[in-house]
Amino acid sequence: MELADLRARTDTVLNDFLAAKARTAAACRWPDEVTGALRDFLFAGGKRIRPLLCVLGWHAAGGQGSPPAPVLATAASLEMFHTFALIHDDIMDGSDIRRGQPTVHQALAARYTARHGAHAADRLGAGAAVLIGDLALAWSDELLHTAGLSDAQLADVLPLLDAMRTEVMYGQYLDLTAAGLPTGDLELAMAIARYKTAKYSVERPLHIGAALAAGSARLRADLSAYALPVGEAFQLRDDLLGAFGAPEITGKPALDDIRQGKHTALLALAWRHATPAQQHQMNALLSDPDMNLEGALIIRSILIATGARDTVESMITARRTQAEQALARAGLPPAVATALRELATTATARAA
Amino acid sequence: MELADLRARTDTVLNDFLAAKARTAAACRWPDEVTGALRDFLFAGGKRIRPLLCVLGWHAAGGQGSPPAPVLATAASLEMFHTFALIHDDIMDGSDIRRGQPTVHQALAARYTARHGAHAADRLGAGAAVLIGDLALAWSDELLHTAGLSDAQLADVLPLLDAMRTEVMYGQYLDLTAAGLPTGDLELAMAIARYKTAKYSVERPLHIGAALAAGSARLRADLSAYALPVGEAFQLRDDLLGAFGAPEITGKPALDDIRQGKHTALLALAWRHATPAQQHQMNALLSDPDMNLEGALIIRSILIATGARDTVESMITARRTQAEQALARAGLPPAVATALRELATTATARAA
Repeated sequence: MELADLRARTDTVLNDFLAAKARTAAACRWPDEVTGALRDFLFAGGKRIRPLLCVLGWHAAGGQGSPPAPVLATAASLEMFHTFALIHDDIMDGSDIRRGQPTVHQALAARYTARHGAHAADRLGAGAAVLIGDLALAWSDELLHTAGLSDAQLADVLPLLDAMRTEVMYGQYLDLTAAGLPTGDLELAMAIARYKTAKYSVERPLHIGAALAAGSARLRADLSAYALPVGEAFQLRDDLLGAFGAPEITGKPALDDIRQGKHTALLALAWRHATPAQQHQMNALLSDPDMNLEGALIIRSILIATGARDTVESMITARRTQAEQALARAGLPPAVATALRELATTATARAA
Repeated sequence: MELADLRARTDTVLNDFLAAKARTAAACRWPDEVTGALRDFLFAGGKRIRPLLCVLGWHAAGGQGSPPAPVLATAASLEMFHTFALIHDDIMDGSDIRRGQPTVHQALAARYTARHGAHAADRLGAGAAVLIGDLALAWSDELLHTAGLSDAQLADVLPLLDAMRTEVMYGQYLDLTAAGLPTGDLELAMAIARYKTAKYSVERPLHIGAALAAGSARLRADLSAYALPVGEAFQLRDDLLGAFGAPEITGKPALDDIRQGKHTALLALAWRHATPAQQHQMNALLSDPDMNLEGALIIRSILIATGARDTVESMITARRTQAEQALARAGLPPAVATALRELATTATARAA
């Protein structure tokens, strides 16, 4: 199974779909910046983890050889959905940079500044990005129901897709509303990681792929036993990168998560072991949306001093071990097991 | 065909669906304010025009008697989609009041003010409302594909639904990006009215309903000949109400559209017949997001002095006549024709 090849084929599906949408827009004299912004964002980068896992799930359930068009289109629809999720996420978090480029709302705001002035352009950019995200969500459905799936495949996939969409949106909701209020609530932080990342980015794509090859409930459970610890480890690594990662590698500004006061396991653990004086600092700094670099560096030092950083590293190791044991038990096709093992490594040891 | 009865049955479908989602949320320990906000918004009002038109389309194509559950669920899914559209629309327009109540983002902001402070609460309210709108969009799909439609019905409905979603989002995009820059571009204003309102609110719901009873291409064309002029007239009336309507009847603040500098036919016509001095005032006032009441009243006076208000009234009358002639030609079932004729009257003569 060639990873680069799979990525190229998924991107071709996405590119062809957007090209057709661009032709429709031209015919209706609709602004071309809508499909343009989606294309710019999609092809600026992204790991295509969800399409890859979807195809791996299909192989795990017995899908042989090169994935057929309906499987690829389903994989592509997961990436289009993810595009929607990231565009809206960046608006809600007020993020300026993603994939080393201006986020969609920032790029659109810049586009409108000349005609509308800076103040109006920011509102316009956010509004236009909300709409472009909405279109990406609607188009992820269109990609799925025009994928050429059989009625049986659709009947198996749709409930999983409904669950995935509801889970990730509640996960985002918890993530959004918990930010800025530091507490030691590790359970909440791990629930956010589970719904926002582990289930959405790892478990459900595998499940959906397996459903395309009529995978059994047993297989689904085996995939979950691997996916949930890997997904949690992936998020825990993301939390560490958000606080300690190098911007030139992550493609995001340094300390972004800290500035946004995200309620991560890293922060919850730090809070639990912080002195009253440190808790006081965390309260003051993390509730300030305009926290400066100095403040972020103070938080970073508390994350280290309290041992939270080390604890999160060991949580990642434990989950990676757990996932490898689950893989060993599962008895998946060797090629799939190898790919999932590699993915567990890169996802938990990655620097970006 | 009992209108009140149809509305009650659609609302029961929506209420039962949200109740099931609330049970899932409780079981997962997800915040109950998500389904709560949707229920509050849905049942605070709304004309349920799209569900009604969907059922009328089904009757027009030969659907007999009381609409069966799959037709009602499809009608309900259109209302859930509309809930998504209004929630995001109010965020983009910065509207505070809808259906005589605080908009969803305002209600959520108020909810968070105590814990997060006013500044953070506004951002949080907007972000949470974006997510709740996203869920309403995803759930409108779930309502449709769990409606119990036959594969043939789904195959006919899905392309129409895809078209509807793409059209309304581009219409909103044009509406958003044209605001604040007064011009005499009447074509643009009418394109916005067509995509944002006429096709989305009238034509597509009729088409989707007709597709549920395997309506012919000929019927679809007949319905369009009625729907497009009625939908345009509906939007033109909405524009007049946005500038001249009584807030206690419209449920929206007076002069809301004017304050937002919406590029309506009303405004385009005023611009075309405005003196240079009036155009100068329009430029200065309509580009100001913080236009005060005095400024809005000046714009209102220009809408009257230029004759734009009268011209829009006559455009409404012309479209209503056109729609009635189309109905007379169409030879629809008498009960359907009567209901559509009444709808054309209320939609174009309404005060709210």
